Amino acid sequence: MKASETAIILIEFQNDFCNPEGKLFALVQNELARNQTIIHAKKLLDEARRKGCQIIHCPFTLDKKWIEANHSVGILEGLYDNDIFSPGNWGHQIIDELAPWENEIVLEGKRGLSAFSHTNLAQILHFRKIKNVIIAGFLTNICVQATAWSAYDLGYNVRLIPEACCAASQEIQDYVETQICPTLGGALTVEELISALN
Amino acid sequence: MKASETAIILIEFQNDFCNPEGKLFALVQNELARNQTIIHAKKLLDEARRKGCQIIHCPFTLDKKWIEANHSVGILEGLYDNDIFSPGNWGHQIIDELAPWENEIVLEGKRGLSAFSHTNLAQILHFRKIKNVIIAGFLTNICVQATAWSAYDLGYNVRLIPEACCAASQEIQDYVETQICPTLGGALTVEELISALN
Amino acid sequence: MKASETAIILIEFQNDFCNPEGKLFALVQNELARNQTIIHAKKLLDEARRKGCQIIHCPFTLDKKWIEANHSVGILEGLYDNDIFSPGNWGHQIIDELAPWENEIVLEGKRGLSAFSHTNLAQILHFRKIKNVIIAGFLTNICVQATAWSAYDLGYNVRLIPEACCAASQEIQDYVETQICPTLGGALTVEELISALN
Amino acid sequence: MKASETAIILIEFQNDFCNPEGKLFALVQNELARNQTIIHAKKLLDEARRKGCQIIHCPFTLDKKWIEANHSVGILEGLYDNDIFSPGNWGHQIIDELAPWENEIVLEGKRGLSAFSHTNLAQILHFRKIKNVIIAGFLTNICVQATAWSAYDLGYNVRLIPEACCAASQEIQDYVETQICPTLGGALTVEELISALN
Repeated sequence: MKASETAIILIEFQNDFCNPEGKLFALVQNELARNQTIIHAKKLLDEARRKGCQIIHCPFTLDKKWIEANHSVGILEGLYDNDIFSPGNWGHQIIDELAPWENEIVLEGKRGLSAFSHTNLAQILHFRKIKNVIIAGFLTNICVQATAWSAYDLGYNVRLIPEACCAASQEIQDYVETQICPTLGGALTVEELISALN
Repeated sequence: MKASETAIILIEFQNDFCNPEGKLFALVQNELARNQTIIHAKKLLDEARRKGCQIIHCPFTLDKKWIEANHSVGILEGLYDNDIFSPGNWGHQIIDELAPWENEIVLEGKRGLSAFSHTNLAQILHFRKIKNVIIAGFLTNICVQATAWSAYDLGYNVRLIPEACCAASQEIQDYVETQICPTLGGALTVEELISALN
Repeated sequence: MKASETAIILIEFQNDFCNPEGKLFALVQNELARNQTIIHAKKLLDEARRKGCQIIHCPFTLDKKWIEANHSVGILEGLYDNDIFSPGNWGHQIIDELAPWENEIVLEGKRGLSAFSHTNLAQILHFRKIKNVIIAGFLTNICVQATAWSAYDLGYNVRLIPEACCAASQEIQDYVETQICPTLGGALTVEELISALN
Repeated sequence: MKASETAIILIEFQNDFCNPEGKLFALVQNELARNQTIIHAKKLLDEARRKGCQIIHCPFTLDKKWIEANHSVGILEGLYDNDIFSPGNWGHQIIDELAPWENEIVLEGKRGLSAFSHTNLAQILHFRKIKNVIIAGFLTNICVQATAWSAYDLGYNVRLIPEACCAASQEIQDYVETQICPTLGGALTVEELISALN
């Protein structure tokens, strides 16, 4: 894989998920510790920057106008009620360990499960001549998987980095690794990715 | 739920999946028998037609020009190599039990996991003023789930009918029912759906 | 037309176009004066607010990361070179006369000719159950027309308000009014629109 | 321009437009003769095939189910009433002079002004690694221009071939050539295109 044709998609490494004070921390706390998600994500980001990959940070954004208009039920409804990922709030911010650099893209307006929904991510990948889409973040079996499938349907070479992802339980994490990753072409560790990049 | 605002999305009830002579039958044979998928899907279709729902049949379509252009890996790659879901072939046809009626939509060009990818399904739902998207078919944890997530991100009220779906194993089917359906707002049996429609 | 099902799309009423100090003012100065665009747009906005229409402000946004990635030529290239519509700048701001109210949508990320390109405008219209799309702004024959065509292709009832639009010359303005508006179903004056709304 | 990265988009060279027995022939008859559209389009196609460009034929398709669902007004409404471009009909067929070859793409489902609306054209261009989008066909100021703008917004290098296009009058054709083509980066004759390709 050429680094310049490889995008690293980092999904929802925000305080509300990653920080002990965050509103969704309790949901992922055990798996964050077991999987060492943040440590692996930091290593992924450091190495990908050094190799020259294109880094795309994808925070989830919630705003009142959207809530008003979009009568969603299900998983996103809970976020609306609790002011989670609300722009301007501390909980919405990307964690210090993975803070975006000046020249990196911070995707605007991710408000769906897939980072491609309602955003210009498809155009960003197209314009930057990306071929490989590498995904890490939260939750492994929801937004990470939904984003991976969208990228797959768009014809990209897609790989998850499970050790830099996090789900609500080990059982769920294992399910994605064993049942979903193979359908995308396989998963990679950070080490394996870095070795494969040139 | 108003029947006129409810779309029944039937995914890949094609000979290659459903018929003992089909090229993917072996993959789903056990679960088809255990879950009674076809019987439930037939009941779903019969009742939904009677109520006046909008029926949308979504066959998967493979063609050589697309293969040539789209260098996919992963789950779809295997289909390319084996001439599965190839238009004009018997394996591509929707099974007789669920054959589309004249006035029903047969979605053109489903070539991705999500039925929304590369098709005009979003416009069809929009133009027909659909609010509720009910999904059944194959595979529960791949195309059915990917389509459900796309519909969810587009703001629809989405429900799976697990007893009219089919996965490659009971474990996978159970995973979707317990871990994914709740995030969409819950699942329904055919009976529950029909009672809810007016 | 029901006001609640009617969106007023205001395109690029920003200082760079409308204010004598703006970087593109010279291009439209004569037509702004002749057509009384701002006065008509102000009346359109006031009346549409009073009727309860849904107001969507669509500023054009230029940023360096996008320039870097998108090697466009043509009309947008000139903007890149001259730091026009650059976010954070005075030239990017919507003019005081038409300043958005708290509850109104300000579309994020319009970077193409059509306000639908790379934005979530399609979802906003869908979620808000819009049927009628009313468009005013700059330039009549470029972004206004491109946005109108996208909305038409999405199945909306589309109307331009030519007296609240502005082109680079009367000849061009006349062309759109006589050759393009009829293909969309006709144009409206502000008065005609307000009479038609209930 | 590399030929392999160049797509030739041929819009609506169908009997209903091009043939004296076609239902829309009267609309374009004079300009077809003056501009020698078909002769230029044939030369464009012959040379582009010889050079190895990727050819994409884009017929307009009308069907009853779409009409039923899509309550369009304006220019497309007239087509619905008159059974123009109806699939299976002679009027829908691409003219013999420009008949698609086996390995060329015939776009499915163009039902809007832009060939990108409701079709997978964006994915086709992306998968085939296209950089240059060359457009010819009908009508210069409607479907050709709408398609050109969509391609421009997607970041392609877009060129119209005006001598292989056709509008309803010379005045309209001249407007597109003088006012729109420069905003896209200029127009080309068939000769100029062929010289530029390698």
